[in-house]
Amino acid sequence: MTYQSLDPLFSPASIAVIGASSDPRKIGGRPIAYMLRSGYAGKILPINPKQSEIQGLPAFASLAAVGHPVDQVIVAVSGALVEGAVEEALAQQARSIVIFSSGFGEVGHEGKQKQEELARRCADAGVQLVGPNCIGIFSTRNAMYSTFMSALEHEMFEPGNVGIVSQSGAIGSYLYGLAGDRGVRFSHFVATGNEAGVDVAACIEWMAHDPNTKVILAYLEGCQDGYRLRNALETARQQRKPVVVMKVGASEQGAAAAASHTGSLAGADVVFDSVFKECGAWRAQTMEELVDIAYACSISVLPHGNRLGVITPSGGIGVIAADECERSGLVLPHLPEKLQAEIKSIVPFASGVNPVDTTGQVVSDRQLFNKIMKIVFEFDGFDSILSFNANIGKTEIEWGKVRDDLLALRRQHPEKLVALSMRSAPEVVKELEDHQILYFSDTAVATRTIGALAWIAQAQQWPAMSVPAAAPAQAALQWSEAAIDEAQARQILEVAGIPFAPQKVVDSAQAAAQAAAEMGFPVVIKVLSPDIAHKSDVGGVLLNLATEQEVLEGWKRMMDQVHSHCPDARLQGAVVSPMIKGGTETVLGMVNDPVFGPMVMFGLGGIFVEIFKDVKFHTAPLNMAQAQTMISSIKGFPLLDGARGKPKADVHCLAQALVSLSNFVFDNAADLASVEINPFIALPQGGYAVDALIIRRS
Amino acid sequence: MTYQSLDPLFSPASIAVIGASSDPRKIGGRPIAYMLRSGYAGKILPINPKQSEIQGLPAFASLAAVGHPVDQVIVAVSGALVEGAVEEALAQQARSIVIFSSGFGEVGHEGKQKQEELARRCADAGVQLVGPNCIGIFSTRNAMYSTFMSALEHEMFEPGNVGIVSQSGAIGSYLYGLAGDRGVRFSHFVATGNEAGVDVAACIEWMAHDPNTKVILAYLEGCQDGYRLRNALETARQQRKPVVVMKVGASEQGAAAAASHTGSLAGADVVFDSVFKECGAWRAQTMEELVDIAYACSISVLPHGNRLGVITPSGGIGVIAADECERSGLVLPHLPEKLQAEIKSIVPFASGVNPVDTTGQVVSDRQLFNKIMKIVFEFDGFDSILSFNANIGKTEIEWGKVRDDLLALRRQHPEKLVALSMRSAPEVVKELEDHQILYFSDTAVATRTIGALAWIAQAQQWPAMSVPAAAPAQAALQWSEAAIDEAQARQILEVAGIPFAPQKVVDSAQAAAQAAAEMGFPVVIKVLSPDIAHKSDVGGVLLNLATEQEVLEGWKRMMDQVHSHCPDARLQGAVVSPMIKGGTETVLGMVNDPVFGPMVMFGLGGIFVEIFKDVKFHTAPLNMAQAQTMISSIKGFPLLDGARGKPKADVHCLAQALVSLSNFVFDNAADLASVEINPFIALPQGGYAVDALIIRRS
Repeated sequence: MTYQSLDPLFSPASIAVIGASSDPRKIGGRPIAYMLRSGYAGKILPINPKQSEIQGLPAFASLAAVGHPVDQVIVAVSGALVEGAVEEALAQQARSIVIFSSGFGEVGHEGKQKQEELARRCADAGVQLVGPNCIGIFSTRNAMYSTFMSALEHEMFEPGNVGIVSQSGAIGSYLYGLAGDRGVRFSHFVATGNEAGVDVAACIEWMAHDPNTKVILAYLEGCQDGYRLRNALETARQQRKPVVVMKVGASEQGAAAAASHTGSLAGADVVFDSVFKECGAWRAQTMEELVDIAYACSISVLPHGNRLGVITPSGGIGVIAADECERSGLVLPHLPEKLQAEIKSIVPFASGVNPVDTTGQVVSDRQLFNKIMKIVFEFDGFDSILSFNANIGKTEIEWGKVRDDLLALRRQHPEKLVALSMRSAPEVVKELEDHQILYFSDTAVATRTIGALAWIAQAQQWPAMSVPAAAPAQAALQWSEAAIDEAQARQILEVAGIPFAPQKVVDSAQAAAQAAAEMGFPVVIKVLSPDIAHKSDVGGVLLNLATEQEVLEGWKRMMDQVHSHCPDARLQGAVVSPMIKGGTETVLGMVNDPVFGPMVMFGLGGIFVEIFKDVKFHTAPLNMAQAQTMISSIKGFPLLDGARGKPKADVHCLAQALVSLSNFVFDNAADLASVEINPFIALPQGGYAVDALIIRRS
Repeated sequence: MTYQSLDPLFSPASIAVIGASSDPRKIGGRPIAYMLRSGYAGKILPINPKQSEIQGLPAFASLAAVGHPVDQVIVAVSGALVEGAVEEALAQQARSIVIFSSGFGEVGHEGKQKQEELARRCADAGVQLVGPNCIGIFSTRNAMYSTFMSALEHEMFEPGNVGIVSQSGAIGSYLYGLAGDRGVRFSHFVATGNEAGVDVAACIEWMAHDPNTKVILAYLEGCQDGYRLRNALETARQQRKPVVVMKVGASEQGAAAAASHTGSLAGADVVFDSVFKECGAWRAQTMEELVDIAYACSISVLPHGNRLGVITPSGGIGVIAADECERSGLVLPHLPEKLQAEIKSIVPFASGVNPVDTTGQVVSDRQLFNKIMKIVFEFDGFDSILSFNANIGKTEIEWGKVRDDLLALRRQHPEKLVALSMRSAPEVVKELEDHQILYFSDTAVATRTIGALAWIAQAQQWPAMSVPAAAPAQAALQWSEAAIDEAQARQILEVAGIPFAPQKVVDSAQAAAQAAAEMGFPVVIKVLSPDIAHKSDVGGVLLNLATEQEVLEGWKRMMDQVHSHCPDARLQGAVVSPMIKGGTETVLGMVNDPVFGPMVMFGLGGIFVEIFKDVKFHTAPLNMAQAQTMISSIKGFPLLDGARGKPKADVHCLAQALVSLSNFVFDNAADLASVEINPFIALPQGGYAVDALIIRRS
């Protein structure tokens, strides 16, 4: 199915409303009222057996009575009548169906079954289904309002370029209003409700191809198919459409609230976080942030890089911006000394470094500000410019002194992102936005938003990725045993390309000493027994044996201790391996996420993962560049990069191991619950897995 | 000097303006114009030798010509004339002086000297001086406007209960507008400018005692006297006046920008952060956050605890609130099952757990919502209540269906913090605020703000602290040597109460073996030489010696190695100490901050401090409770608290060591640059310092 198959949803030529009402405030009346008001150019066909006319339009007793197939059927009847309505729509060859009615998956098992049956019927007929339990869909571009969203009664904005996709009707509707208040205008809106058919991913993909949509604002509570979502996000990225997403349920309390609220599989929140990052989608923490970034993407060009120039009559504001730059990944390049001198020749006590502090002297003579602003705009070392202008947007006279110069500079430098932080009258804000200048009252929020846009722009430059449709349904390897022991895990992963420390299984002290001599001292010896899980607890591990003599003596001591602790254990000899020194312990692993499938993980292990949560995830399979980014983005990376006088670890080898692991877990995802290589010792040259655990799916 | 000495600044009975202007938009004209407009009840005395009347008031040729002393003199003349004006004010027994004029400390060394001379003259005369280079001070309560802040031309708000103290006039003025837009109203405003006399701390202290001020909003770029600031914050806390503060320069780029902008000593930003926390002041990251929290403290009671009840017709909004609760230290107690059942009897598919999800069913029948709201208000397990109401504040009819019930419940439960998240018309917002109900459009921001207020309320419950005026000017201990070596550091800190591992200095292998036998094996032996800094690099450290034999053999090996590496080093024997096992390495230290003096630090040492920045600071001296809070608030605390199967560390002993260290560093702050006890091994019972470094102030 291609994205075009959603066309009948977003731009239908005819819309029938089953359950049409004469009351423009009823659920079955609102879509008709809205479309009459907006001037929808297609046919509106009210279906109601009891009325011949509805809101001035001829009504039909049934869909069949219309006499021709319609592109879209809205179902606005009570739950019990939905099935009949859908059957009628399918019989009359409707191309898309929007079900407002509730009483399905959201109310329990029986409703869920009914919903799945509806979905199956529509899918078999190749018909797009939105809902049930949704507030619908609208396209300002087509003046099409297949929705009963009540906010539209009072606030029907002119068309714009932001698409909204929300799993929640209430939140989608609230965001429409919040973003509308911020000056955002919309191309399309979908609330996907129970997602029996069309899901958020499908809508993102359609909007990614829609020429009227410049940015996509998405609200998510869960996801049914992680691969579809990744694919949609990747499509949007390749189409240069920023996706700004809010996904709730990040915390324990939030996840608990989400579980009681939605039936979607939540998946691990950190995994969602990783997926958004690797797909170049910006994840917002609050509705305000979501709206601010969508606003900025809607109005402005994206900056070409992360270099920001700040101009302000208040030094303190410069510090606020600089603080936020550090948090937001922006840099503040210094102006060349020549330009700094020029600035000082305009205002003697100005600081021309960046942030450029014009001092309050410009308040009494705005021409001084304008001259310095010109220098800042014309310097080619800034990708974005942020100007603080205090309260001048509140008074016509003061604004008038800066306005023309600012707008002229903006026109001369259309490739730069330009943002103003000031307090303004609404008409000044509108004028700025008409000139692709972003408006913020808070300077830190302005800076943070510029940082987000710089990141989005950078993510658009990453090479195209191809997202698989799913991991193979059948594992590449077939194991007869239910569980995989350590030795098997090692063998499997060695074949998969993970380097392990050399080891030799021996059955006598003499054989151990000989193996040690061949490997080189010092060595480690571990007892081998199917009956002993925690070898070191029973004296079954000897570290750092430096000579043949130590091996021979140690062997006896170890076997005696093990025997006295576990007299009944079957002893199968021991494993000799070199004692690895000077490396850094890391952990390579995989968890099979219910939504996104096999996720590779990397961290420094132990307390760093458990207590400091310093771990990164990435979908499998991954390439070398992605693996290297994973490694270098943990907080503890300096420990692998020569901190505290240690030699640098061989990151290339680590990355290769991650890539090998990722290919293995992807190919065998159908059969794997988790894999943990712990520790993997990263050495200055090379590296070795020491222990590995593979847990199969039950 | 008591806080009352600032009375002539905030409530003067007469104000003379030296440099008074007939032009109400000039710096010397604005204060007069503002006070004429506001109806200031005291005397306004324009001083201008060239005019007999200014803005309708009789003008005087000089201050002497007034004929009686005035409470306040505004100096609004050019820099060169300031000195004369101040002398005149002092000669005429003015009680306070506000200098608008610039050209002093902010322009360089010479200006700074002039400013210090002015400050000295005023201090000698017991006259309060604000500025120079400041936009002044105003008190809405007294209709007193000794300021040329231009925003007041268009926006002079009615009196309120929020005091603003800002080091920056531009930012103070901008905050006045931003907060004003948010509905905040002000009691007093001071921009302290160059702070030659009155500083932010003095103004906070005055406002803390002012009955018209309920909350203090402060903006800081630096601080001249950390003890004064702490004392002011502690006074405000004891007076139950929340202080919400923004301090800029948190980042490297920000600190660089701040350094180029302000002459104040910045101090380390993490230290500021610690001080604000220990004084119960809330540090905001953005101007919006600053304003939101001041707004909330201004309008609402503080909640009695951190238990939040959320009611929403949208499950997704409940998840947003729950996510933010976790970040903000709030908890969401479940409603008792009886009440949950009651809720379900009102709306069958509602979730009564908390967040209480009424479902969208209430949209068509608001009475259902009101009934559930009543249950939530009446449950005594919530300290705060957050209600999401979508867009209903935008339409009179919908708002009308909820309004009366909400306001009645609010009146019946005045002890609870009540906040609404919705979109509203301004008059609805005003009505809410008149009923002490907080208004937010963004649900996460609402939740975060409630969390901040809960923290502030909790901090108000801490026992009173007495802040010293300064650390002793003379160190308690006197050392003759310039530098303190390791042995001396150990001796000094042992006397100060820090436990060290036992050790014995020995000069032969036999003596070492005997010492080891007395201490108990295993032991560590370190060579003793004034010429060897890094002992382990030259083979001068032996770990884990388990028998007398190992000590005897080891001694010879060690001495041979050291001799071969450093043939010229003077060897003075070795130090024997027990090998401590099973403990956790920590670091106890002190840095002498330029602003706040001796700050005690605690962390897990090494990479945890350097790479993960997991370290806490606290002013010295500290008490046991404060020390225990420091220890338990590091991220790595689980490592001391039994994580990963390790025994719990003796936190009491650690805290005692911190307290002892804090007393020592406070008493000797005059002579100390830094102290580092690294490592201090925390054991299951007790703990030992192993190495210590004391660096004296140069």
